Amino acid sequence: MTVEQFATRHIGPGPDDERRMLEVVGHGSVDELMDAAIPEVIRWHGTLDLPEAATEAEAIAELRALAARNTVAVSMIGLGYHGTHTPAVIRRNVLEDPAWYTAYTPYQPEISQGRLEALLNFQTMVTDLTGLATANASMLDEGTAAAEAMTLARRASKSKSRVYVVDADALPQTIAVIASRAEPLGIEVRVVDVDHDELPQEFFGLHLQYPGASGAIRDHSALVKAAHTVGALVTVAADLLALTLLRPPGEIGVDIAAGTTQRFGVPMGFGGPHAGYLAVRSGLERMLPGRLVGVSRDADGNPAYRLALQTREQHIRREKATSNICTAQVLLAVMAGMYAVYHGPDGLRDIATRTHDMTARLAAGLRAGGVRVADVAFFDTVTATVPGRAEQVVAAAAERGVNLRLVDADRVGMSCDETTTVAHLEAVWAAFGVPAFDGDGDTALPGDLARTSDFLTHPVFRSHHSETAMLRYLRRLSDFDYALDRGMIPLGSCTMKLNATTEMEPISWAEFAHIHPFAPDAQTVGYREMIGQLESWLAEVTGYDAVSVQPNAGSQGELAGLLAIRSYHASRGESHRNVCLIPSSAHGTNAASAVMAGMRVVVVACDDDGNVDLVDLDAKIDKHRDALAAIMVTYPSTHGVYETGIASLCAKVHDAGGQVYVDGANLNALVGFAKPGKFGADVSHLNLHKTFCIPHGGGGPGVGPVAVRSHLAPFLPGDPLGAHVDATPAISAAKYGSAGILPIPWAYLRMMGAAGLTRATGVAVLAANYVAARLRGHYPVLYAGNKGLVAHECILDLRPLTKATGVSVDDVAKRLIDYGFHAPTMSFPVAGTLMVEPTESEDLAELDRFCDAMIAIRAEIDKVGAGEWPAGDNPLANAPHTAAMVSGDEWPHPYPRSVGAYPAGVDRAGKYWPPVRRVDGAYGDRNLVCSCPSPEAFDD
Amino acid sequence: MTVEQFATRHIGPGPDDERRMLEVVGHGSVDELMDAAIPEVIRWHGTLDLPEAATEAEAIAELRALAARNTVAVSMIGLGYHGTHTPAVIRRNVLEDPAWYTAYTPYQPEISQGRLEALLNFQTMVTDLTGLATANASMLDEGTAAAEAMTLARRASKSKSRVYVVDADALPQTIAVIASRAEPLGIEVRVVDVDHDELPQEFFGLHLQYPGASGAIRDHSALVKAAHTVGALVTVAADLLALTLLRPPGEIGVDIAAGTTQRFGVPMGFGGPHAGYLAVRSGLERMLPGRLVGVSRDADGNPAYRLALQTREQHIRREKATSNICTAQVLLAVMAGMYAVYHGPDGLRDIATRTHDMTARLAAGLRAGGVRVADVAFFDTVTATVPGRAEQVVAAAAERGVNLRLVDADRVGMSCDETTTVAHLEAVWAAFGVPAFDGDGDTALPGDLARTSDFLTHPVFRSHHSETAMLRYLRRLSDFDYALDRGMIPLGSCTMKLNATTEMEPISWAEFAHIHPFAPDAQTVGYREMIGQLESWLAEVTGYDAVSVQPNAGSQGELAGLLAIRSYHASRGESHRNVCLIPSSAHGTNAASAVMAGMRVVVVACDDDGNVDLVDLDAKIDKHRDALAAIMVTYPSTHGVYETGIASLCAKVHDAGGQVYVDGANLNALVGFAKPGKFGADVSHLNLHKTFCIPHGGGGPGVGPVAVRSHLAPFLPGDPLGAHVDATPAISAAKYGSAGILPIPWAYLRMMGAAGLTRATGVAVLAANYVAARLRGHYPVLYAGNKGLVAHECILDLRPLTKATGVSVDDVAKRLIDYGFHAPTMSFPVAGTLMVEPTESEDLAELDRFCDAMIAIRAEIDKVGAGEWPAGDNPLANAPHTAAMVSGDEWPHPYPRSVGAYPAGVDRAGKYWPPVRRVDGAYGDRNLVCSCPSPEAFDD
Repeated sequence: MTVEQFATRHIGPGPDDERRMLEVVGHGSVDELMDAAIPEVIRWHGTLDLPEAATEAEAIAELRALAARNTVAVSMIGLGYHGTHTPAVIRRNVLEDPAWYTAYTPYQPEISQGRLEALLNFQTMVTDLTGLATANASMLDEGTAAAEAMTLARRASKSKSRVYVVDADALPQTIAVIASRAEPLGIEVRVVDVDHDELPQEFFGLHLQYPGASGAIRDHSALVKAAHTVGALVTVAADLLALTLLRPPGEIGVDIAAGTTQRFGVPMGFGGPHAGYLAVRSGLERMLPGRLVGVSRDADGNPAYRLALQTREQHIRREKATSNICTAQVLLAVMAGMYAVYHGPDGLRDIATRTHDMTARLAAGLRAGGVRVADVAFFDTVTATVPGRAEQVVAAAAERGVNLRLVDADRVGMSCDETTTVAHLEAVWAAFGVPAFDGDGDTALPGDLARTSDFLTHPVFRSHHSETAMLRYLRRLSDFDYALDRGMIPLGSCTMKLNATTEMEPISWAEFAHIHPFAPDAQTVGYREMIGQLESWLAEVTGYDAVSVQPNAGSQGELAGLLAIRSYHASRGESHRNVCLIPSSAHGTNAASAVMAGMRVVVVACDDDGNVDLVDLDAKIDKHRDALAAIMVTYPSTHGVYETGIASLCAKVHDAGGQVYVDGANLNALVGFAKPGKFGADVSHLNLHKTFCIPHGGGGPGVGPVAVRSHLAPFLPGDPLGAHVDATPAISAAKYGSAGILPIPWAYLRMMGAAGLTRATGVAVLAANYVAARLRGHYPVLYAGNKGLVAHECILDLRPLTKATGVSVDDVAKRLIDYGFHAPTMSFPVAGTLMVEPTESEDLAELDRFCDAMIAIRAEIDKVGAGEWPAGDNPLANAPHTAAMVSGDEWPHPYPRSVGAYPAGVDRAGKYWPPVRRVDGAYGDRNLVCSCPSPEAFDD
Repeated sequence: MTVEQFATRHIGPGPDDERRMLEVVGHGSVDELMDAAIPEVIRWHGTLDLPEAATEAEAIAELRALAARNTVAVSMIGLGYHGTHTPAVIRRNVLEDPAWYTAYTPYQPEISQGRLEALLNFQTMVTDLTGLATANASMLDEGTAAAEAMTLARRASKSKSRVYVVDADALPQTIAVIASRAEPLGIEVRVVDVDHDELPQEFFGLHLQYPGASGAIRDHSALVKAAHTVGALVTVAADLLALTLLRPPGEIGVDIAAGTTQRFGVPMGFGGPHAGYLAVRSGLERMLPGRLVGVSRDADGNPAYRLALQTREQHIRREKATSNICTAQVLLAVMAGMYAVYHGPDGLRDIATRTHDMTARLAAGLRAGGVRVADVAFFDTVTATVPGRAEQVVAAAAERGVNLRLVDADRVGMSCDETTTVAHLEAVWAAFGVPAFDGDGDTALPGDLARTSDFLTHPVFRSHHSETAMLRYLRRLSDFDYALDRGMIPLGSCTMKLNATTEMEPISWAEFAHIHPFAPDAQTVGYREMIGQLESWLAEVTGYDAVSVQPNAGSQGELAGLLAIRSYHASRGESHRNVCLIPSSAHGTNAASAVMAGMRVVVVACDDDGNVDLVDLDAKIDKHRDALAAIMVTYPSTHGVYETGIASLCAKVHDAGGQVYVDGANLNALVGFAKPGKFGADVSHLNLHKTFCIPHGGGGPGVGPVAVRSHLAPFLPGDPLGAHVDATPAISAAKYGSAGILPIPWAYLRMMGAAGLTRATGVAVLAANYVAARLRGHYPVLYAGNKGLVAHECILDLRPLTKATGVSVDDVAKRLIDYGFHAPTMSFPVAGTLMVEPTESEDLAELDRFCDAMIAIRAEIDKVGAGEWPAGDNPLANAPHTAAMVSGDEWPHPYPRSVGAYPAGVDRAGKYWPPVRRVDGAYGDRNLVCSCPSPEAFDD
C-alpha cells in the first residue's frame, strides 16, 4: 500500500520537474549527475543505516511517546533558568509563525525592518534595565555571554594582568564556561568569595553575579571602584527581572552586563534556546561582539534599521575578530523583547514584585517552621540550611512535583518565578516538614539598592498591552519582512530550505518546553533518549564515531572541535602543536575560532579554480610541520565545488601529525553520498539550521553539534555543572545546549530516512546545476568541479558587468527585491559575486521565477551599459522601490513607474513591498543609535 | 498579590483611555454611563454567579485536566465521521492563523479575495468530485445539508406530493435531522429499504446514501430514473473520498448531492465543526441555500471573486427565503479545500485506495476467521454479523483502543480511513477472536461503478504539493485579506472582538480534536463536563434555566427555539398557535426561521425612533390573539438602542398566550447588566461568535446555543441518534453540535469572570457612545435611547449626504479600505446607513484612528459636494485604490495619487493594499461562474 512520504513534501521538484531540470543540465538521472559531480575518491556507496522513514503522523506519535517519558515538574531550581508564562499571542504569532521563524539574518535591511525593529526593542529593553549605553542583539546564553564579557574586558583593559576574578556566588555553569574559554587564551581564572576574600593585586576583569546564585543581593559599588583602581573592567551578570526593582549595574559604574532573558517568556527547553544578553557602557560599543542593530536612514531620508558596525564582525576581521560569534538568538530575543512590550514597565514590575513576595512568603514559612534561611537580602532565591537533610528535602519536594536545588549535603536552594503559586510553596513547606504558612513575608529587598530610575519609557512599551494591539503589532512587523513563507531565499552557504511544520510543532509541547536543564535524570528520560538517537543518526550521516549537541551555534561547534584537537595533542604530549592551516576561501569564523582555541592561523592559498592550492599546502606543512595542529577546510568548498584533492589534502596533514577539521557548512551537498568521517576528516561541526532544518529564525537559534572520530571523543564537551576544563570543556551553559529545539532535526531525520535524505542531496545539487545552466549565458559562473558541474550552489560573477556598467552586486541584490526575491549571498567567498544556493525544497516554478528574474535583470544592466538609462538613475540604482515611491505625486525618473514597481513577471496583486528604500549603512555607523528612536523621527 | 487578569488583555482601553473616553461622552464613570443607558425596568443588579476569573495559565491547566478525562481512541465507527490527518502546514497556517480565523464574512469582496479564492477551490472540489454543476461555499454538516436538500427538492419539484423518501441505509442522524425539519413543514418522511421495498406512487424527493451507512455501494441509476418519472428530485449523500474511485452522482442524473467534507483534513471534534457540502445540477443553482462564491470582475476588468446571487439569501428575502442559513463553515471549508489542493487528484486517489485496501484486508481477515461479513460492494465500511455477540466484540475492541459501531445485538460495523494502520486491524481481529491476517483482501469496489472521469484538473490542484509551495500559497491568499489581525472591523451587530490565543489553542489538542461524536460516554467524560459547565454559565449569564449547545449556527438556534415554542404550545393542546410577530427592523433570518418552524410571519411596525411600535403591536396581538405563538425581538434592538418598552412588550405577548423570543445577537450589550431570561423572554439563541469569542473564521464556524426558561426545557434539541421528532428535535447531526470549538467560549467565560464580563459590556457601550459622540457632528447618528445614549453600536446616517453629493454608502465603505479599515455594516437595519460596533477590544488609539478616518472622509465628501472633485471621478468613487492603480504609468484622475493612496493619517510603510479594485457584483451574477477560472483569465 502506498504511504505518503514526507520526503515528497520536503523536496520541491516532483518527478516531472526533475525530468525537465535534468534535460537542461544534460544528465539522464540524478544518480548519474551525482556520479559525475562527486569525486569517486570520497564517494560513499552504502545506504545510511537509519530507521525506515516515518510518516509525519508516525514521527509525531514517536515524539509524543518520547515526550511522555519526560516529567514536567515545577522548577524552583533557579540558577538562571526559571518558569515563565509565554504570552500565548507571542507564542502563536512569533515562535509558531513562519513569517518569523523562516526569516534569514537581516543582512538585507530593506526586507528585514520588522525583525530589526523587534531586535531594537530587545536592545532597548536590555540597556534600559541594565542602565548601560549599548546592548547587542543577543548572545547565545548567559555562560557564553559572560565568557565574551571576559574577552571583551581583556581587550579593553589597560591592565597587563592575565588574571580574571570571578565571584564565587556566580552561576556554577557560568564559571565553567568562563574557565573553558580562558584556558586556551592563557587567562587565569580566580574564583573569589567577594564577601570574605581579598581581591588579587592585579587583574584585568571582575565578574560579579547580581543577585548571586545563592540568592544574596550585594552592593557591588566598592568592588567596582576597587577594580577600576587597578584598571580592570567589571562585568555584572544581572537578572533583568530583578533589575526592575534593584539599582541597575550601569548606575554604579559597571562596564559590562551579561546574562539571560530566558525568563522573559522563553520556555526553559532543557537548557535552550533563549537569548543571552550583553550590554556595555559608553565607549565600549565598538568592541561588542555579535550583532548590533542600529538606526540609519533610507534613500528618502526616512529612519531605517540595519545591522550596525559590521566591520567588527568575524566574517570581516577573521583572525583579528573579537569573537567567533555569527549567530544571535534572534527568534528568542524577539520573544523576550515582545514580552517586555506586552507587559510594559508596570507589568514587569508587578511580575517582579509578585515573584519577590512569593519568595518572601516561602522564607517566612520556612523560618516559622524553624528552618534556617540565610539572612541576606534576596529577590527570588533563598538558601535554607538543613544539616544533613538536604538530599532528603529535595527528594521529598520532587515527590510533590517540585524541583529544588541541592546545594550540598546541608543546603537547599529554591527560586520563585512568575509561575509560582501558593500551592507550590505548600509543597515546599511540606517537603521541609514545616506547616503551611498563611501570612506574607517581609520584603527582603535592600532598601538602599532599590531602583529609582525609570525604564522602558519608549512608547512601544506602553502601546501594545491588549492582546488585539499586540497581535496587530506583530503582524505589522512580520509584514515588513521577507521570509521563506513568501518566496525563495537562495543564499549560498546558508541552505534556506523548508522548516516543516511537523518538525516545528513539538517544540511547543510542555514536555519539551518546560524542563529545567538541571532537572533530575529521572525526569528527562525521553529527552535524553531523543538526544541519544539524534546524536547517533548524525554520527551515521557524517561517518563519525561520536557527536555532542552541546554547542549552541556553529561557531561554538567550531570552538569545541578545535579544543578537542588541542586536548588530543596535549594528551599525547604535543601541546606545542598550535598552528591551524586555513585556506584563504574559508568562512571568517574558522579563523576567529582557531584564535579562541589558542592556535595560530596560517593561511593556505587557493588556486585559480578556487581550490586549495596543494603546492602551497605542502609548503605550509613543511614550514610548520612540528607545530601543525590542524587544517580547517570546508567541503564542498566555499566556492561550491567538490574539490578532488580533498583526500590527498587529508593525507598530507595526517602525515605531518595534524588533524583535519571539515567545516560542515556544506553538508547539504554530501548527505548520503559522502561522509567526512570516512574520507579523511577527524572532526566537523554541523550547522543544524542548514542541513537539518532548524529554522534560521531571523538569525538564530543556532545549533552546532560537533562530531568526531573516536580518538577525539574523550575531548568532547562535558557537563558544565561538573566539567573538567582541560579535557571536557563547557562550551555552553547547559549540557545539551539548545535541547528544546532538537525535536526539529530529530523529526527531519526520522521522516526523511536514508532514501529521502539521499534524494534531497541529489535534488539540491541538481537545482544548483539547473540554475547554473540557465544563467551561465547571462552571468559567468565561477568555478566548477568534475565535468563542469557545481555542487549545491553556484557563484555568479558580476565583476565584468560592474566594471562595464557601474551596476554593482548591491544594485542587483536590491533589484531582486523588486522582483520578489531575497538576494543570494553577496560577495562571499569572492567580492563582486553572488552565490546562489537553491536547495532541494524549491520547486521548478520557483527556480524558474528566479532565473527569469536574473535574466531580466541582466537585460536591465545592459540598458544601463548601453546608456539607455543613466548610471545613477535607473531601476537598479533606485532599487528597491517602495509603494510610496512608485505612487509618489512626482516621478522624476527616466523609466516608467511600472518598470520600477512591476518588472517583468511580477505578480501585481500579491507583490511584496519593502517598507523602506535603500538603507544607508555608513550614515548609521557614523551616527550610532542602537535603541528605539523617538516616534517623531518617523514624522513625514 | 496582583495577578494579571485576562480581562485587561481582552479589553482594549486601559484606565487612561477610559477616562478620556468618558470625558468625551460626558459621564463620570462606566457605571454611571450604564445606569443612564440601560432602562431600569430591565436592569439586573446582581453579580454573575460564575467561578472567580482564572488567569490564562489557570484556564489552560483546567482545560488540560478536562481534556485528560477524554480518551482518544482509534475511531472505526464511521457514520460520516472519520479519522483524518490534518496536514500540519494547513493546521498551523489556517486553523491556527489569525489572518484566517479572525476574518469576517466576505461581504466586502475587495478585501476578501484570499478566502474567496479558497472557497472557490472548495466549490470546485465539490463540483468536480460529485460531477454536478454548482456547489455552494459549504453547509453546517451532512444532516442539515440533507435537510436543506429536501426543502430545495420541495421547492424545485413539480410534484404536488408532500412525501419525501429516505433510504433506510442513510446515516441515522441524517434521517433524524430530515425528520425534524420535515415535520413543521408538513412533509411526510418515508424511510424505505431501497433494496427490497417499493417506492411510493408519489413523492417529491428521494434521499439516497452513497455508500450506505452499512457500507454497501449500490447502483442508484434505476432509482434516479424512477424518481424523475414521478417528478421527484434525487439527492445523493455521497462520501467525497469514495467519489475519487466511484462514479459520481452527477453522472447518473442526480439532482443534488449533499454530505460532509470532514475527512478532508478536519478533525472530528466530537461532532464538529466541519464543512458540509451541497451541490446541484445545472438549472438549480439559483435555488441553492447558503453562500455561493462566484467570479466577477473589478473596475479594471480583472477577474475578482465575490459572493454571488446574494438576492437568494435570507437577509434579503426574509420570510420568502429558501433557507434561514446565514453562516457557512468557511474556516473548515478552507481547510478541506486546501487538503484537496495539497494532495491533488492523485494524492486523494491514493488515500482512497489505501483506505479501501485496508477495509478489504479487514474483511478478508474476518472472513478467514469464520466471521460473516455482508457480501456487498463496499468502499471503507463493512458490517459483520456475530449473532448475539456484537456488544461483546465492540467492548473487546474498545479495550484494545478501537471504537467500532454497534449496529444491533448481532451486527458490528467498522470503517477504515487514512489513519488506519495494520495494528488497528489486528486489534479488530483480536476483538472478534479471529487470527491476524497477513494477505491483502480482494477489492470490493464494484467494477461497473468505477470512476472514469477526471477531477481536480485545475492547476491549483497540481501546483502546491510541496510544503513550501503550500505554505506560500496560504500566505499569499491570507495577505490578500483584511482581518482583525490588521485592524478594527467595526461591524454593527457582528461584534468582531478579540479571539484570544489562549481560547484558541485547546481546539488543536488531540483530546478535543480527535473524538468521534458517537464515542462511548466513558471516553468523553471531560468533554461532557466542560459542555455542562459552559451550558450552566451561559444560563447564568442569560438568566435562563436550560441551554443546549447543539445548534451549530445562530440560524439553527433560532429554529430550535421556535420549535421549542411550537412543541410547548402543542403540549398544551394549542397547536393552532402559529403566528410569529416580527418587527420590521428584525434580522431577515428571524422571519426565515419562523417559516421553517411552521409559523406564519406577521410584521409589527417600528416607530420613527426605531422602536417597536407598541400601538401596532397591540393591534397585531388583537388581530391574532388566538393564533399567537410568539414574538421575536432583538434586544438591544437592531438599531442599537435599549428600548424602554421591552418589559411591556413581553407582558402584552404573554398576556395573549404567546411566547417571547429574544434574539441574542446583541447580548454583548447586556452581559452582567440585564438577563433576557429575567426581563420577560422565554427563549433566546446566542451567537457564540459574537459575544463569546468563537472566531468568525471568514464566515463560520458558528455556534448557536438555544437557551430557554424551564417550561420550554423539555423541548430542547435531543440526541440525533435517538431523537423523538415531536418533542426533542435533531437540530444538527451531532448531539453537541460544534463541540470541538466549545473550549473557546468556555475559556472566555472562565478567564473573564463576573467582573471582567461586566466590565467588557460597559466598555463596549462606552466605545459605541464615544464613536457616536465624536462623529455626531459629521454624520447624523440615527436613533438613541435614554439620555441620547446608544447601546453597543451606533448608526451613521449617510442618506442626506448621498442625496446632496451622490456619494453612496458603498463609496464610503470602499474608501475606508484606503484608510486601512473594514467597513461597518452597510444598509442594515436602515438602507443608506452605516452601523458601527467598535466592541470592547479596540483601544482608544484604534477608535480614534477610525473616527479620524470617518471625519476625513466627510471632508472628502464635501469636496465632491462643492464640485471640487467631479461626481464620477474622485477618491470615493474610485475607492479602493490598489497599488497597481496608484503606481500606474498614467494617472488620469483629478486628484493626486497621494490622496488616493495615502489619505490623511495612513501609515505608509505598513499600508494594507487590496489586491483588486472595486468589484462589479452584478456582472458576476449575470455571468455566473462558481468554480476556479482558468489561469489565462488573470493574464494582464
